[in-house]
Amino acid sequence: MSQTVSPLAPKTFPDLPPVAGVRFATAEAGIRYRNRTDVLLMLFERGTTVAGVFTRSKCPSAPVEWCEAKLAAGRARALVVNSGNANAFTGKAGRAAVKRTAELAAEAAGCKPREVFLASTGVIGEPLDASKFEGVLTDCAARAADGPWLDAAKAIMTTDTFPKVATRTVDLGGVPVTLVGIAKGAGMIAPDMATMLSFVVTDAPIAAPVLQGLLDRGVIDTFNALTIDGDTSTSDTLLMFATGAAAARGAPVIEESRDKRLAEFRAALFDLMGDLARQVARDGEGARKFVTINVTGATSKRSARRIAMSIANSPLVKTAIAGEDANWGRVVMAVGKAGEPAERDRLAIWFGDIRVAFRGARDPDYDEAAASAYMRRDEIELKVDLALGEASDTVWTCDLTKEYVAINGDYRS
Amino acid sequence: MSQTVSPLAPKTFPDLPPVAGVRFATAEAGIRYRNRTDVLLMLFERGTTVAGVFTRSKCPSAPVEWCEAKLAAGRARALVVNSGNANAFTGKAGRAAVKRTAELAAEAAGCKPREVFLASTGVIGEPLDASKFEGVLTDCAARAADGPWLDAAKAIMTTDTFPKVATRTVDLGGVPVTLVGIAKGAGMIAPDMATMLSFVVTDAPIAAPVLQGLLDRGVIDTFNALTIDGDTSTSDTLLMFATGAAAARGAPVIEESRDKRLAEFRAALFDLMGDLARQVARDGEGARKFVTINVTGATSKRSARRIAMSIANSPLVKTAIAGEDANWGRVVMAVGKAGEPAERDRLAIWFGDIRVAFRGARDPDYDEAAASAYMRRDEIELKVDLALGEASDTVWTCDLTKEYVAINGDYRS
Repeated sequence: MSQTVSPLAPKTFPDLPPVAGVRFATAEAGIRYRNRTDVLLMLFERGTTVAGVFTRSKCPSAPVEWCEAKLAAGRARALVVNSGNANAFTGKAGRAAVKRTAELAAEAAGCKPREVFLASTGVIGEPLDASKFEGVLTDCAARAADGPWLDAAKAIMTTDTFPKVATRTVDLGGVPVTLVGIAKGAGMIAPDMATMLSFVVTDAPIAAPVLQGLLDRGVIDTFNALTIDGDTSTSDTLLMFATGAAAARGAPVIEESRDKRLAEFRAALFDLMGDLARQVARDGEGARKFVTINVTGATSKRSARRIAMSIANSPLVKTAIAGEDANWGRVVMAVGKAGEPAERDRLAIWFGDIRVAFRGARDPDYDEAAASAYMRRDEIELKVDLALGEASDTVWTCDLTKEYVAINGDYRS
Repeated sequence: MSQTVSPLAPKTFPDLPPVAGVRFATAEAGIRYRNRTDVLLMLFERGTTVAGVFTRSKCPSAPVEWCEAKLAAGRARALVVNSGNANAFTGKAGRAAVKRTAELAAEAAGCKPREVFLASTGVIGEPLDASKFEGVLTDCAARAADGPWLDAAKAIMTTDTFPKVATRTVDLGGVPVTLVGIAKGAGMIAPDMATMLSFVVTDAPIAAPVLQGLLDRGVIDTFNALTIDGDTSTSDTLLMFATGAAAARGAPVIEESRDKRLAEFRAALFDLMGDLARQVARDGEGARKFVTINVTGATSKRSARRIAMSIANSPLVKTAIAGEDANWGRVVMAVGKAGEPAERDRLAIWFGDIRVAFRGARDPDYDEAAASAYMRRDEIELKVDLALGEASDTVWTCDLTKEYVAINGDYRS
């Protein structure tokens, strides 16, 4: 576990309002950690809709399989999240643990097990002992309140060095509705001391299929535009719950994706998701630099994304940034290896506003001292213009430092 | 530059025989390094055939473009290799430098510039000053001799900690012929202080199209089965030269790929290429473990290769191995993220002979102490059985250590 907070952490946390129809509590179930909370129970008022997006791994965790199966009904009454054990690659025992946890939560929440959603993060391959939740979930339900959100965000952390929270208030058909999101991601988006989990709640009344459409579209340029090390978790989970409580205050029930009244809500949701995704990059394991990569002039958005990800996942680019080296040669390499349309003699590369390479060679006017000064910042923008088309894309990542290796490799030392 | 030799370096070098029709010399051209050789000139007797395989980067270096264009004629009289500057992303000046170098070498060798092949490795984006080769290449040609091969291998090193050489002697139609290969690869297969270069020479008389066919097939399970960090150089170059000098001793001229007399030669060539590729992995930047990854039970070889490469390129798997941690959870993750057919409940994973995971869960008989002891070795074999089909594949890599980050990121510290 990291002991020091990432230098890229936000200086302050926003005030996080209650969301009507949502109550929660956290507890110490002692799953793996000592002297810290490791379980979050969230309760939703009757009628709450749910949508979700999950890891594309071919070997998903037991809770991911559970959630995917239960999502079809579009209804949720409870969410249980634990840290310390991912309940992934745990076979039949893992499925049994999920079922037992859902039963315990359903009992505590007064709902059906199929209305319970679950997420787990932590070590994979270790059996999760669901009996640890006995009593604990009932107690959480009894204590459940509409705050404080920071406690919820803290209970789901693993190697995270700070809790990740965001909120937006937005107009829906003339009525203000609230969005609150929490996330965890220990920098890498991968299992065993990592995994990206995020939960977003709102009091807006939105039908489940509409909610699902929003998430499917929203992840593209937010959580899916994020990489720490290119590794994909067995457990990545984004769930969104809409209680509909704002309907009592006159908010319209949104039944159709094309409903124009949804525009402001959609924008605010995507903004909040991007905010949370960037916070994950800022807490990248061992990260000292937050890196934004912009690719322009591509032949398609898909091509721009692939080139941006090739740069963002390159160990050589990431170590160069860690070394505060404006090493555009490695950027060229990463563009070249992406396998996407690119012409060396059209390529231009910037660090910040400093153009370091232009038309297939070093920019003759490039000022090394200015570039070096820029690289000492803790937020780096890298731009590549392919000069082939009109498409562009942006992804976020962080640098690759010795601390990353230490966090992930020093178990035995 | 690394100062200490990789702990995975071979304990001894093989005796490397002369290859009839090949002479060479090295020199200090002062391109970047001081007090070490940085240029190799190799001369081939008239009638020498050539074949080559190059980086798939969309932004190849100027020498790669030159070689690809000149390969069509299939004839070679000279090879110039320099270390210290890759002459990549150098625009028109880079193309001019290649042309000038070829002219200087042609003058020294008494051949046409188009019969000169070139390779450069080192920093990218810096103009290469071809005037450094003036006089130097003429002097090399005057001194050219049939050994020692280790000098040739040393002149092309960058962050390599040991020279990479291999040799085979094999029967071709009743006549013994010789193969000698040298390689450089500073662990990563990428630019700026790395790039994989390899040159293989033989006295066998083999037509250029046959030679090309051998290389195209040979790289699949040798150089292309190797990864250090997933980064692809702008400059990767494998060239093979066949002088045909053994024809004077009665060796048959091989004009057809299906010629049965080629079988033993083919096997020896592939074996030599595999040997050189593994030496590159053993010199991986910062490497402390040489890692062989076997994937079996796949639905196709292509699928097995993708899964093996997903494992080999995973920073989390590589840091775990550096930490001597038999972390099969991360192997599951890497299998899952490959996007290839895989079923969690059929998967089995071994470190060496120790089966750690079986049918979707931790192997109940798995002995952690034995696994820990195994992980302390400096050669690790990781096997994944998908239990879906009959296809298999093997790739080689190394671990990811803090030294890798230091070598690639500590320029400014």
